[in-house]
Amino acid sequence: MRVGDGTRAVRVDSAGGIAVEILSYPDIGSLLRDPDWSSVAAQARGAAHPLDGLGRTAFAPVVPHPQKIVCVGLNYREHILEMGRDLPEHPTLFAKYADALIGAGDDIVLPRPVAGTVDWEGELALVIGRTVRGVSREEAAEAIAGFTVMNDITVRGHQYRTSQWLQGKTFEGTTPLGPVLVTPDELPAAARITTFVSGVRKQSAPVSDLAFDPAALVGYVSEIVTLRPGDVIATGTPGGVGHASRPPEYLSDGEEVVVTVEGIGAVRNRLRVVDAE
Amino acid sequence: MRVGDGTRAVRVDSAGGIAVEILSYPDIGSLLRDPDWSSVAAQARGAAHPLDGLGRTAFAPVVPHPQKIVCVGLNYREHILEMGRDLPEHPTLFAKYADALIGAGDDIVLPRPVAGTVDWEGELALVIGRTVRGVSREEAAEAIAGFTVMNDITVRGHQYRTSQWLQGKTFEGTTPLGPVLVTPDELPAAARITTFVSGVRKQSAPVSDLAFDPAALVGYVSEIVTLRPGDVIATGTPGGVGHASRPPEYLSDGEEVVVTVEGIGAVRNRLRVVDAE
Repeated sequence: MRVGDGTRAVRVDSAGGIAVEILSYPDIGSLLRDPDWSSVAAQARGAAHPLDGLGRTAFAPVVPHPQKIVCVGLNYREHILEMGRDLPEHPTLFAKYADALIGAGDDIVLPRPVAGTVDWEGELALVIGRTVRGVSREEAAEAIAGFTVMNDITVRGHQYRTSQWLQGKTFEGTTPLGPVLVTPDELPAAARITTFVSGVRKQSAPVSDLAFDPAALVGYVSEIVTLRPGDVIATGTPGGVGHASRPPEYLSDGEEVVVTVEGIGAVRNRLRVVDAE
Repeated sequence: MRVGDGTRAVRVDSAGGIAVEILSYPDIGSLLRDPDWSSVAAQARGAAHPLDGLGRTAFAPVVPHPQKIVCVGLNYREHILEMGRDLPEHPTLFAKYADALIGAGDDIVLPRPVAGTVDWEGELALVIGRTVRGVSREEAAEAIAGFTVMNDITVRGHQYRTSQWLQGKTFEGTTPLGPVLVTPDELPAAARITTFVSGVRKQSAPVSDLAFDPAALVGYVSEIVTLRPGDVIATGTPGGVGHASRPPEYLSDGEEVVVTVEGIGAVRNRLRVVDAE
């Protein structure tokens, strides 16, 4: 949570309607690097902030500086099958840099020349809670600290300039991650992810429809490279992105896009187009 | 440079045959975050290590923990044209995570199941020396702290599992970066990059043949996302990779691959295939 000039890790007590500061941890990334993060968070007794009084931009990215953000393409079964493709044998992985992240209520600010093809991709994201390399499915599941929501905002014009998607995926300050991290037991098995643009539902799917589920993704990535506390894996987006509409549909200046996952909450962000200096 | 249990930034005085410790900076990445890095390095008077006495693994990755590693595909003009393609309008960008990096003389260690398609990609890499966003060509050039050598070792089997190359590019501990950083004035304009596998020359090209030169790449990436001190851009590889041979050629267990850039030095690494536990 943003406090004064910086950020502070907080525990959100929804029942009590407060966010309680977890002292000496500037953010959830630093908290997760403490092996005792779970009990430290449970026992925190810092300053309490009423949730009612929080402004739209109160929440920083839930992990502001992950060392790795691993994104997954094409991962909802129904969407893959409806597009006439076979289920993939391996997950499609690509990266995003941490400078792309914004908080759950921040504006998505882009300069006019690149702001004409801005699309949404609502995603369930997982955050790693312990260091793992080459782990079994069971250990992979245990390495997941919890879940949050990402909108993998994509500048389609740049994504398709070349064969590699990175440049359309990592524009500075365009990817909301939040608002909070919920532990795996708090995510309902039947949770749905839903994306609304200007109040119109665009994407909706059960997160149980993932071709590669969270534990499978952690296991797969950990065969390649070590995953560390605070690392983020975005699990892919269901059907209903704007680019797939005929004609394609993109966000306009001032338009709000909301991605919500049951049991976690929502990221709500407005596109703000600015003229270059 | 590796010293005791950790690393220390050093200034290499080739004429004097010594590496001089730059006190209070654990590595070149942390040094570059000091705006006075250039004069700090010039004035350093720490412990001196004779270069003659250094072991093969004395050098850590020249920047061990860059926040961003941006890699460029298809960037040598002669190679693009000989493959019958047009020169690209935009650079192809993809990422690598910092956990992929190793020192200039370290072994490339891979488990047997993935070690059958390991290929070389010798590259000139640049390291950022000041924070830049959306800069002109001139400012971009000034943001380059210097140059080093990368071998963008690629597991082709994983690279081509899906459309996105990341998973073949970021295997833990496989990408040598080093041995040293040279400032831009120390890189000869006519410098060649050359790759040898078991002593046989496989790649050789002048670094002046880049379709997008270092300043152009810094400018292009900085339009998308902020570049910060210690960030690395690998500028792409010339023709002569093993995968393009008929039949394709890959590194075998124990084989040494050397990438050298005139004016900088060489990374020399042996593939070591290990059986999974």
